[in-house]
Amino acid sequence: MNSYVHYRDWFNVRNTLPKEVRIGFVPTMGALHQGHISVLEKARRENDFLVLSIFVNPTQFNDPNDYQDYPRTLELDRRIAAECGVDALLIPGKDDMYPSGNDMPILTQHPLSQIMEGKVRPGHFSGVLTVVMKWLHWVNPARVYFGEKDFQQYYLICELVKQYFLDLEVIGCETLREASGLPLSSRNQRFNKEGLELAHRFAKLLRSGSYDDLASIQRRLEAAGLIVEYIEKHFGRLFVAVECHGIRLIDNFRL
Amino acid sequence: MNSYVHYRDWFNVRNTLPKEVRIGFVPTMGALHQGHISVLEKARRENDFLVLSIFVNPTQFNDPNDYQDYPRTLELDRRIAAECGVDALLIPGKDDMYPSGNDMPILTQHPLSQIMEGKVRPGHFSGVLTVVMKWLHWVNPARVYFGEKDFQQYYLICELVKQYFLDLEVIGCETLREASGLPLSSRNQRFNKEGLELAHRFAKLLRSGSYDDLASIQRRLEAAGLIVEYIEKHFGRLFVAVECHGIRLIDNFRL
Repeated sequence: MNSYVHYRDWFNVRNTLPKEVRIGFVPTMGALHQGHISVLEKARRENDFLVLSIFVNPTQFNDPNDYQDYPRTLELDRRIAAECGVDALLIPGKDDMYPSGNDMPILTQHPLSQIMEGKVRPGHFSGVLTVVMKWLHWVNPARVYFGEKDFQQYYLICELVKQYFLDLEVIGCETLREASGLPLSSRNQRFNKEGLELAHRFAKLLRSGSYDDLASIQRRLEAAGLIVEYIEKHFGRLFVAVECHGIRLIDNFRL
Repeated sequence: MNSYVHYRDWFNVRNTLPKEVRIGFVPTMGALHQGHISVLEKARRENDFLVLSIFVNPTQFNDPNDYQDYPRTLELDRRIAAECGVDALLIPGKDDMYPSGNDMPILTQHPLSQIMEGKVRPGHFSGVLTVVMKWLHWVNPARVYFGEKDFQQYYLICELVKQYFLDLEVIGCETLREASGLPLSSRNQRFNKEGLELAHRFAKLLRSGSYDDLASIQRRLEAAGLIVEYIEKHFGRLFVAVECHGIRLIDNFRL
């Protein structure tokens, strides 16, 4: 199993695979946790050949500090990849992924890219869609897997695949949660003890009381010391983003 | 040979082709002429399966009148396709190509997309790159063919293929010309007799005198009654665009 494979070398591997071999692809930004593992296990079961990519994509970060501070745990990630039966692990650098800059990006004006995460993080979804398009060409999977924790991302990638006639399936994977309801996230690794307690409290507060009155939920979150970026209902789901001890937390779930 | 094939039906055809079958793809806006025929013949020789698409792409026209007036000669095009041994002729409508609008376009800021045609026709190359990306997914060719008459387009598509890791070859095809040097173009069909004479004169004037002094070539063109949009040297080539009896003419050639 290689860690960095140049896309031309990978093309050579890919092109020797028989046509009927179905590639499952799990693109990630690394810092793998149990949520990723469950996705990898699902993809392992559903496909003949499993590709995992790890790339912290700079063009989807509007905040350079957030990019800098994004957790990187490569050695652990490699072990997890091996344990999950990954056939090819792709870990390109920035210059591999953007060999001549980023002057032909996909620019989304889709309505769902303009609200919530799209509003709070200008340019975020354009960066996501651009890098995902590159990855889909690079890997050429039959199925690609995304977590529903980033529901807007998942939905917009489904739309990208439709609009650009990509011949593959996008599989949304349910969010894994702690007992409190807190979704597993790479960013959780950045909390200290106090921050983590508040994060669990956030999850519990979200799950108490009626969803008819979002303003009162917001007041409860704020009273607990969270800064609420947004709390909105769409597609019969509740979407929320808060700042918790200086770290962003997002969640969404079916009501 | 089908004329309109839904992309899902085409995927079914494509996916039954053995892996070693190499698809050659010639995307066009129709109004086929001898220039297209020579490209189709080249693609026919170099590949096992030949796909021709005809689609006048609205998103690459900044001028709605130009889009409206673009010549459409479908019956003749079909005959030419049959004579050139085209295996699949794809003629989608606007709603087939843009099933949910165009809210995730590729937006080029590449330097070569900002000058000459890119400057005169704002948004033109973003429209081209967006529709070409869709087509490349739709057809999945081993080789795609573009005329060097639209050299900026050809160059930017090479760049698109590089930046997005598309696993195919972009083949540039030399411009076919009348005896005067006038490049063959679908738009030439829109000239009346007087306009066509001036067009030939344009081609001859371009080929007389030194290329060290572009200003004097420009003066000669203007004296003949042409409106010069630009005349510039790049990549050791001369690029020129004029308005000739209300119709745009472009050309470029190696110096």
